[in-house]
Amino acid sequence: MKDLHHSCQWGTGVKWGSDPTETGMARLALSQDDKSVRDWFVEKMKQLRCNITVDEMGNIFAVRPGRRTDVPATFIGSHLDTQPTGGRYDGILGVLVGIEALQVMDDLGLESEGGIGVVNWTNEEGARFPMTIIASGVWAGSWPLAHCHALKEVPTVASLPSATSNPETLKEALQKIDYLGDTPCSYEAMPMAAHFELHIEQGPHLVSSGQQIGVVTGAQAYRWYTIKVVGSDCHSGTTAFEHRADAMYAAARMMVKAREVGSSNGCLASIGILKALPGSVNTVPGLVTFSLDVRGPKMEMVAKVEEELRKEFEVIARNEQESKPCSVEWTVDFDSPSVEFHQDCIDCVRESAEAVVQDPKSQIRDMISGAGHDSVSTSKRVPTSMVFVPCKDGVSHHPQEYCTAQDCAAGASVMLQAAIRYDRK
Amino acid sequence: MKDLHHSCQWGTGVKWGSDPTETGMARLALSQDDKSVRDWFVEKMKQLRCNITVDEMGNIFAVRPGRRTDVPATFIGSHLDTQPTGGRYDGILGVLVGIEALQVMDDLGLESEGGIGVVNWTNEEGARFPMTIIASGVWAGSWPLAHCHALKEVPTVASLPSATSNPETLKEALQKIDYLGDTPCSYEAMPMAAHFELHIEQGPHLVSSGQQIGVVTGAQAYRWYTIKVVGSDCHSGTTAFEHRADAMYAAARMMVKAREVGSSNGCLASIGILKALPGSVNTVPGLVTFSLDVRGPKMEMVAKVEEELRKEFEVIARNEQESKPCSVEWTVDFDSPSVEFHQDCIDCVRESAEAVVQDPKSQIRDMISGAGHDSVSTSKRVPTSMVFVPCKDGVSHHPQEYCTAQDCAAGASVMLQAAIRYDRK
Ligand SMILES: NC(=O)NCCC(=O)O
Ligand SMILES: NC(=O)NCCC(=O)O
Repeated sequence: MKDLHHSCQWGTGVKWGSDPTETGMARLALSQDDKSVRDWFVEKMKQLRCNITVDEMGNIFAVRPGRRTDVPATFIGSHLDTQPTGGRYDGILGVLVGIEALQVMDDLGLESEGGIGVVNWTNEEGARFPMTIIASGVWAGSWPLAHCHALKEVPTVASLPSATSNPETLKEALQKIDYLGDTPCSYEAMPMAAHFELHIEQGPHLVSSGQQIGVVTGAQAYRWYTIKVVGSDCHSGTTAFEHRADAMYAAARMMVKAREVGSSNGCLASIGILKALPGSVNTVPGLVTFSLDVRGPKMEMVAKVEEELRKEFEVIARNEQESKPCSVEWTVDFDSPSVEFHQDCIDCVRESAEAVVQDPKSQIRDMISGAGHDSVSTSKRVPTSMVFVPCKDGVSHHPQEYCTAQDCAAGASVMLQAAIRYDRK
Repeated sequence: MKDLHHSCQWGTGVKWGSDPTETGMARLALSQDDKSVRDWFVEKMKQLRCNITVDEMGNIFAVRPGRRTDVPATFIGSHLDTQPTGGRYDGILGVLVGIEALQVMDDLGLESEGGIGVVNWTNEEGARFPMTIIASGVWAGSWPLAHCHALKEVPTVASLPSATSNPETLKEALQKIDYLGDTPCSYEAMPMAAHFELHIEQGPHLVSSGQQIGVVTGAQAYRWYTIKVVGSDCHSGTTAFEHRADAMYAAARMMVKAREVGSSNGCLASIGILKALPGSVNTVPGLVTFSLDVRGPKMEMVAKVEEELRKEFEVIARNEQESKPCSVEWTVDFDSPSVEFHQDCIDCVRESAEAVVQDPKSQIRDMISGAGHDSVSTSKRVPTSMVFVPCKDGVSHHPQEYCTAQDCAAGASVMLQAAIRYDRK
């Protein structure tokens, strides 16, 4: 916990309590604060006698060598970047338990068969550069490097000054903070035996049932879209409703519809970013763009929501009786199919959890992740699974995100054991 | 027309046609472009032997002296600032016909009883500093100088660099372009005999009935609000709908409701600006603010819409069955009651129109303004009325706003005559 809060000195966000550790985090990927925490991470891992590799996406791999040098290392990994109004646990805890695991191995003089590594994946959140799990995705071969290097930052509440005037690309941001490595970003150049990740659940299930460890067996599907509604600017005082092509009104109806259609299909649909132009009180906006995030247990269900919404948005945009028509355009920005994790890794996690908690029957549950994680990417190439720990009220992507020290410690023990169990198999 | 298009070299906006004059305008109040056109205006008026006064709100009064010096001048006025995606006629035409009137008087060697003046009012649009007719309002004693000086700019599509990082106040902007005058901004320090204003209609009535001149007898009421919806940031992938306090969803429902309630009360309701925070695809926004512009023939009708919406928004925010509650806060930013113009001025306009158009019976109509104008402010202190000329398709606050040269010329003749008629009464 000391290391975790120490590392949160870079990118400290909103203060919500009296204790110095009671703040949120605003450490956007590849910001100066992200650079500082990366430098700290690299230093720390060198002290633990790790070999450091930085790849072309800025992913940092730190490997503590094992007895054998002819096999790839088993990794524990997550991310040090946060949401603009994020907390101290999402991602951060996952990297920190990796550090802790190697520290404990050192303290105990434990040697491993293959190496044991810790990886910090770049821009997992998708908050600054709008694709989540982007750098683990490049590593897995899910998206081309050039496309991701060219991705532009979006303005957020914790925006970097550049974001509004002259948005930086991901590659420029890597160069600026000196984390554009030489090693190709791929599972071939940087192979792994397996990937384990600990994360707060970010939902209410563990905490509301008083359980301590989630054995994560897979993750749901999601797809991100940008919806562009084009109408025509006009005067808010002189233009009757029927003469308007009001992109804001159309967008409002679409947003309401998105929730309705998501809900009736057992999916989630959320709007996080909206931009209305020209942005003047007395001009009816002629252009509105908004982000749409649709999630469901299977990609077919997400696709079904998309299909229905494409029809519904078209009808809303045309708006035959009430007004002049707007047009609507869809862009698919990102796509992450549902995954099932590897049985061997799941078993390692379950066995470790059973060895750690007091009452395995009541304190452990199997679960599916609602969020995307770098493990979703790695699972496409190497055996992978995850550990969830509870977070207060199920709250995440919020400054008050919180996980008790006891739950952090239990999770860390499970992770250490899972990695060693896998290494010994 | 030559002068008008010449003056549009400062702040030229979107190009929409092949002719060099076929562009919109983006000349936000007190920008560098606004300074340039102001300098040009002052120079031009000096050449017409006018005395120039700049007041504390940056209003520029240019007076061509008459025979008598013991009576206030009769003014022709409007504004040179535009919307971020505005056109070449809204406001600009009103100032330009004033210049033209004095030019014609000079050409014809016409003398007047009192002086004849032209006034350029500051920030009429309310696009950069979010109160319309603000500087004529201070002149009329409707709002206090200090409040208006302290008003901060809003970011718009044609934003000045300062707007996003460190928004300027109106007073700072006046100082920066050197238009913070010494003369107190008031109807007492700068008295007028009367105020006449020509404007494009900004609506479809004249153009669709093939009429040339609108005799404006009054203006409708409007009120501007900022609506702040507070929920709680949460993760878009892990938070079920019923666990969310989704400020964006609540805001979307409010925007749809605003139109419904406006419409059923014979009023207009429009949302021009919306900001959702933190602005990340996978974080459900915990804070959304939007502007609301409500207009109607009488302030009681606007107040009725407000009353209903306050109730409806509360119900939507609380959202008892579906989700966790949000809260909603209202701020009233601006208020302009409906006005009736002065019969003497209306008569001057009507008589002048009858002398100018070919077939007065079919080409002239009485009308009420849907938009606010500086004349709404002046009418509280001095006899006032307005002339409307048609604009293509009724389109305004849009780059393609257009008024034919013939209609501009007819309007200019009516204005000149109206001012002289009033002066001679
Ligand atoms: N865990 C997490 O918040 N990751 C971001 C990816 C997502 O949007 O699910
Ligand atoms: N004429 C004009 O567009 N004025 C702006 C004031 C308003 O919003 O009505």
